Amino acid sequence: MNRRSFLGAGAGAVLGAARGRGESSTPSNVVMIFADDLGYGDLGCYGSGIPTPHLDGMARKGAQFGHFYSASAVCSPSRAALLTGRYPVRVNVPRVLSAGEPGGLAKDETTMAQMLKDSGYATSCVGKWHLGTDPGYMPTSRGFDEFYGMPYSHDMWPRPLMHNDEIIECPADISTLTQRYTQQAASFIQRSVASSKPFFLYLAHSAPHLPLAASPGFRYKSGQGLYGDVVGELDWSVGAVLQTLKELGVDGTTLVMFSSDNGPWYQGSSGPFRGRKGSTYEGGVRMPFLARMPGRIPAGLRSNALSSAMDILPTVAGLTGATLPPRPLDGVDLWPVLSGQADSVERDVLLYFDDVNLQCARMGDWKAHLARYNTPPYSPAPACGRQNLALPSPELYDLAADPGENYDRAEGNSTVLADIKARVNRLLGGFPAVVWNAWNDTQGRKVQDAPTDGLPVAGDN
Amino acid sequence: MNRRSFLGAGAGAVLGAARGRGESSTPSNVVMIFADDLGYGDLGCYGSGIPTPHLDGMARKGAQFGHFYSASAVCSPSRAALLTGRYPVRVNVPRVLSAGEPGGLAKDETTMAQMLKDSGYATSCVGKWHLGTDPGYMPTSRGFDEFYGMPYSHDMWPRPLMHNDEIIECPADISTLTQRYTQQAASFIQRSVASSKPFFLYLAHSAPHLPLAASPGFRYKSGQGLYGDVVGELDWSVGAVLQTLKELGVDGTTLVMFSSDNGPWYQGSSGPFRGRKGSTYEGGVRMPFLARMPGRIPAGLRSNALSSAMDILPTVAGLTGATLPPRPLDGVDLWPVLSGQADSVERDVLLYFDDVNLQCARMGDWKAHLARYNTPPYSPAPACGRQNLALPSPELYDLAADPGENYDRAEGNSTVLADIKARVNRLLGGFPAVVWNAWNDTQGRKVQDAPTDGLPVAGDN
Repeated sequence: MNRRSFLGAGAGAVLGAARGRGESSTPSNVVMIFADDLGYGDLGCYGSGIPTPHLDGMARKGAQFGHFYSASAVCSPSRAALLTGRYPVRVNVPRVLSAGEPGGLAKDETTMAQMLKDSGYATSCVGKWHLGTDPGYMPTSRGFDEFYGMPYSHDMWPRPLMHNDEIIECPADISTLTQRYTQQAASFIQRSVASSKPFFLYLAHSAPHLPLAASPGFRYKSGQGLYGDVVGELDWSVGAVLQTLKELGVDGTTLVMFSSDNGPWYQGSSGPFRGRKGSTYEGGVRMPFLARMPGRIPAGLRSNALSSAMDILPTVAGLTGATLPPRPLDGVDLWPVLSGQADSVERDVLLYFDDVNLQCARMGDWKAHLARYNTPPYSPAPACGRQNLALPSPELYDLAADPGENYDRAEGNSTVLADIKARVNRLLGGFPAVVWNAWNDTQGRKVQDAPTDGLPVAGDN
Repeated sequence: MNRRSFLGAGAGAVLGAARGRGESSTPSNVVMIFADDLGYGDLGCYGSGIPTPHLDGMARKGAQFGHFYSASAVCSPSRAALLTGRYPVRVNVPRVLSAGEPGGLAKDETTMAQMLKDSGYATSCVGKWHLGTDPGYMPTSRGFDEFYGMPYSHDMWPRPLMHNDEIIECPADISTLTQRYTQQAASFIQRSVASSKPFFLYLAHSAPHLPLAASPGFRYKSGQGLYGDVVGELDWSVGAVLQTLKELGVDGTTLVMFSSDNGPWYQGSSGPFRGRKGSTYEGGVRMPFLARMPGRIPAGLRSNALSSAMDILPTVAGLTGATLPPRPLDGVDLWPVLSGQADSVERDVLLYFDDVNLQCARMGDWKAHLARYNTPPYSPAPACGRQNLALPSPELYDLAADPGENYDRAEGNSTVLADIKARVNRLLGGFPAVVWNAWNDTQGRKVQDAPTDGLPVAGDN
């Protein structure tokens, strides 16, 4: 891939240049940049006071989404879903992995990296992993040619910085992580282009997760405190990656995406939404999502499509022509929206889990809070961290009229609730038994009340 | 007081008609309407989708405040401060009283009702009390000529509705409470006017605290669910009170105020603010405040004065000429702001307590979160209900640039923090020992580290 092929692809324009989608033989590269605990309201283009010129530029020159969700309000499950296109409860990562915890992302799951590697891509994971540290669970066993980063969150000890399977610094100096990750990302892109291999870069920043640390050049620069400085450095990193792609002549053939794993923790803004990290209120799971591919994604596209991080794997498969993993996917191909050909994607119902417990489901603009407990600990913790609310009865919110989930509309809308519950029952019937049983438990049903449409009650997928 | 005297007072205009503030001999009446768990964002004039035409009309024809605070994020302490002009920790109500709990608002405190009664006013408490149920603690022992309402929250049992000291219904039918409170309020106003007595009405609605219930005429009317319907009925009640004042010819000589005791609980909106009921983030304590007195308060006045429910007692004293209680007040007279003569009031520092623990302090636009624990339970509960955050170090927020308290600005602003702490130390030195000791404990100081300016460390006021 050289300057000439980039120009050719750019001229080829919207109808497709990649193997997966059209005429050109130039394979599309994929860069997924994932922030840690960055909130919906933390980017300039999403209303923040933090200056984020490079991410705002991505939004101007590409697509910006307003109804994009992580698949979990906490770290490990969210990442498991991003890399598999499936709900975390299906892939054995329903909750955050502690440091040194055995196991991780189920070994028989196919990651996006493995999918692309099988399709001839160079693959690299730079940054935070957090999907298992046992042999066979680290990135280099899960489809990544190389790994540079931390095996879990940098507030967990002993905080090792690793290169492939080797610890190169412990505890890592966290103030220079963003700089070093960016350097590694650029190096990988350069090496891939030099070897004429299509590439997949998963750049999973440790920022702006606590503890906060910015390198000296970014301290006191944002005017929004240390958190703002850290986001400012993250923004710089995005700009550096985009600049590298441009200099190497591959920015027209590279799909660059940006999102975050879950809502903000102590610091950071969830924008107009209720709740933060750990909550199944929107603030825990509604994420910024930007996608840029000049000539393929229309500049300035704004989408309210109901979309999810689980959609990225099938979207990338469609774009690159890679073969989808053999198991049922929960994500759908977003390309019709990204390319400006459709306003929405087909989605029966979107589920929100807390561990194995289904908490909420969204259908169109309606969001139902469904978990019910017969002996409710009716505690006033709805807007906070890890704990989600035990409800005496289901609640229903109209996210179009009431994005802050302030006014329960369940009364008078029982048919909407019944429709959502029917869809949930159909979908969850195909989930692992532990999920299906937990769901039935909150509904006051016996486990043997299996769905009537023949779906398995205790599936292992 | 008759139609003629109202017209005379109206013609008398802004420079003062009441005994306390000027030429006319017509005493001003006072109506304080207090909602329960209504959030900052729950009125139309504060951005809600709930239609509240009568409250919006109050805002158009009077003053609307944007930086008005309750003195506590929970019920009993907030009400204790409203009625005494003093921080709840000074008047023996640092926390919510349970049903049947002994004691209540310290007997040697003077309520606003007692202050006005001593000045010749008829006084009535209609609605929720929650400042003590023992003999000597109920409204009729605390300066109110009469009481019609509930002794505590209507989610507490056995939920009695009382008239003076008599239980007239138990458990009370909560769906008609707003109607019955409004009827009682109108009756009191009519009787007072008929007897030519100036009057003080404290109308403390039980709505929209949970459990929610609206009377049949208001069900399904708001388009914002049952919570919206309940707020709609509350708005209707405000309109009915204003209409009664108008029909009796006293709306020009009556100061009508509206606010809420604390932020929203499960339902309801805290507007742009973080946190809800129980939290010392702004969402727990920033309240709507409207004040209407045609001819005295300029129509359409909008104020960002740093103000508090504790200011109401001194404001009312100034307006009516009543004698202030003998103890140190934490509130200040808001009349210069309400009358359009000043933009702000003098306030050294505003304190936010959780029980006896000082959590935060506001100085100008800066708000410091000050509580520090040496062994912090660093739990992710900052945005939720009762629990407030144990911080490893103080945080500082610029509420002008960052009303959502998302971006800690402590780094680089140590002089601001030091200034706030110095003011807190001076002020808290005059507080009860339990408060001063708790404050020192979070600062890692010995209790004997008394303030050096001679203020008592273990005062009983």
